[in-house]
Amino acid sequence: MKNFDINEDPHRRFNPLINEWVLVSPHRAKRPWQGQNETISTEELPKYDPTCYLCPGNVRANGMNNPQYESSFVFENDFAAMKQEEIIFEDDIKHTFFKAKPEQGISRVVCFSPRHDLTLPEMEIADIENIIKTWQREYTDLGNIKYINHVQIFENKGSVMGCSNPHPHGQIWAQSSLPTQVEKTQNSLKSYYDKNKKTLLEDYVQAELNAGERIVIENDHFVALVPFWAIWPYETMIVSKRAVNKITNFTAEESSAFAKILKQLTTKYDNLFNTSFPYSSGIHQSPTDGLDHPEWHFHMHFYPPLLRSATVKKFMVGYEMLGESQRDITPEKSAEILRQLSDVHYKSLVK
Amino acid sequence: MKNFDINEDPHRRFNPLINEWVLVSPHRAKRPWQGQNETISTEELPKYDPTCYLCPGNVRANGMNNPQYESSFVFENDFAAMKQEEIIFEDDIKHTFFKAKPEQGISRVVCFSPRHDLTLPEMEIADIENIIKTWQREYTDLGNIKYINHVQIFENKGSVMGCSNPHPHGQIWAQSSLPTQVEKTQNSLKSYYDKNKKTLLEDYVQAELNAGERIVIENDHFVALVPFWAIWPYETMIVSKRAVNKITNFTAEESSAFAKILKQLTTKYDNLFNTSFPYSSGIHQSPTDGLDHPEWHFHMHFYPPLLRSATVKKFMVGYEMLGESQRDITPEKSAEILRQLSDVHYKSLVK
Ligand SMILES: O=P(O)(O)O[C@H]1O[C@H](CO)[C@@H](O)[C@H](O)[C@H]1O
Ligand SMILES: O=P(O)(O)O[C@H]1O[C@H](CO)[C@@H](O)[C@H](O)[C@H]1O
Repeated sequence: MKNFDINEDPHRRFNPLINEWVLVSPHRAKRPWQGQNETISTEELPKYDPTCYLCPGNVRANGMNNPQYESSFVFENDFAAMKQEEIIFEDDIKHTFFKAKPEQGISRVVCFSPRHDLTLPEMEIADIENIIKTWQREYTDLGNIKYINHVQIFENKGSVMGCSNPHPHGQIWAQSSLPTQVEKTQNSLKSYYDKNKKTLLEDYVQAELNAGERIVIENDHFVALVPFWAIWPYETMIVSKRAVNKITNFTAEESSAFAKILKQLTTKYDNLFNTSFPYSSGIHQSPTDGLDHPEWHFHMHFYPPLLRSATVKKFMVGYEMLGESQRDITPEKSAEILRQLSDVHYKSLVK
Repeated sequence: MKNFDINEDPHRRFNPLINEWVLVSPHRAKRPWQGQNETISTEELPKYDPTCYLCPGNVRANGMNNPQYESSFVFENDFAAMKQEEIIFEDDIKHTFFKAKPEQGISRVVCFSPRHDLTLPEMEIADIENIIKTWQREYTDLGNIKYINHVQIFENKGSVMGCSNPHPHGQIWAQSSLPTQVEKTQNSLKSYYDKNKKTLLEDYVQAELNAGERIVIENDHFVALVPFWAIWPYETMIVSKRAVNKITNFTAEESSAFAKILKQLTTKYDNLFNTSFPYSSGIHQSPTDGLDHPEWHFHMHFYPPLLRSATVKKFMVGYEMLGESQRDITPEKSAEILRQLSDVHYKSLVK
């Protein structure tokens, strides 16, 4: 029998955003790895690739030509997961076990830059500010469509994250229902707000700033931290200090502070293993159902898979799929490592 | 405007086992794939590998020698995610945002066979029956330990599923808490049972047998089917026809029928892309907390990642992590494909 030491002993932590537990095994990173190694491309990308369907002027799968765009460029996904068509739906399809309902939606692709070779950390702040403007415009335009109640902005970066084209781009899937993960978050945010008349994340950010140990970056308007309940080895969350519920409510200062923290965080990520760091990232913010949603608080999740090196990732498999998410190092340790990394991109040092 | 066609139109389906929705995009499999290809090993494995830490007689990482085992062999995981030591825990660590509690547990590795090269579909029925006996014994022994309230039996198969050794083996993680996914299932099963005095899966299996279209294999005691709410392209579930709540309550006939359906299903899997089909599988059954649990109903999940071929998997990334699980073909289509595959292993035809 010994006293609980959170830095050493296996334990579970609670995620109040989605009401779920995660298993933390601090000592487990010591085990040797003989499993799969990811292949990483170290080849230098050209500024323009004539075979890339996202580069300016090139032809896409559906035969359409991209314009000679100069900043960002948005188009409808040629292989959208949802369709815009309205579907008539008989309620009697409802059944105890065979419950299904049609889902209306729009999928768009957002090219971040005309340059084939520039990822977020390598872009100028002004270019990132421009991407934020694009996200704001898309959130407004899509959110204004009557049947669209949720706009999911996200990025899959790196082939290990299912990204099939290295040209820097993200996606937007807008739809009529609140997706499962967002609905869970909404429920938690709502019940916290109803009880405390403040957003859950306003209080959480304050508690994290007081604790200090999981903070990666802080500026006047945003904090990047490893959540206490993070599941991926180097998972982070960018949260606004102010309780702003959507990206379109940013002040000009906030937009620029957000661009800066985005560049800093993704630069640290690349510097961690001297590689273009793969991740899925995405913004959680107010639904676009026409209601006020004072309980919502802007935040952006980063879910990166790498664990030990540029080629060894964490596998969320057997136990994680059937039991619960499990991590091999503590969030505090990850935050410390990220915090100490340089803000200067490793590639710019080599040049 | 058109009428809802579940085989053609994007829609959401409801999973009553965990109370969550999944997005189904029937048309999406048509999109071309230019992304990551998995590497598959086509090399023939030897029957015995002197460098394998799971083969009989060899030395493990901790310096211990494996016995000359002849059927299955169980040992404590040298790098366990949980520890058996009892930890003293002050309740005042509880905090709104920083909730954590120590977790006691035991991790074991179960070698399925002394043969380095034999996976489940290639084993004799008698050998699989022997694995089932081992699972029964472990479930009993671990479940009898006072602080163990849940025993998770699972297998990670294939390097794409994080498995670091091709020697056929599974794992058991036994612990004091109900893991997140199991707790969700327990809640659903309990409320269904309280209301209907029958298990949810008893009624579900009957509804699926009546519908027919998602059944892959049926024998006297078990059904293998693609759940209506499956998220992975070729996800399946083996369910007992009788409402038996744990593997130790199988009759001798049921054990042997379970061995048969395991062999048949994994053979079909291997035949799908003529490869040793990767998956994570695991058994969900009654907790071992000493209570009766009449609501529980034995089932085994198979979560295989492959989508298009032996080398192209489905990526559960951006939208799936931030929004909800999304699939590219319908469960009905997957079931039809699996159903029509031969029960004779492709390798045995080549020989
Ligand atoms: O215990 P193993 O086989 O070394 O590890 C594998 O299975 C575990 C349980 O699903 C996972 O946590 C690991 O990420 C995975 O690599
Ligand atoms: O739309 P893409 O980039 O072709 O596809 C990628 O992102 C989607 C959204 O996260 C996933 O559903 C796909 O599995 C993934 O390969």
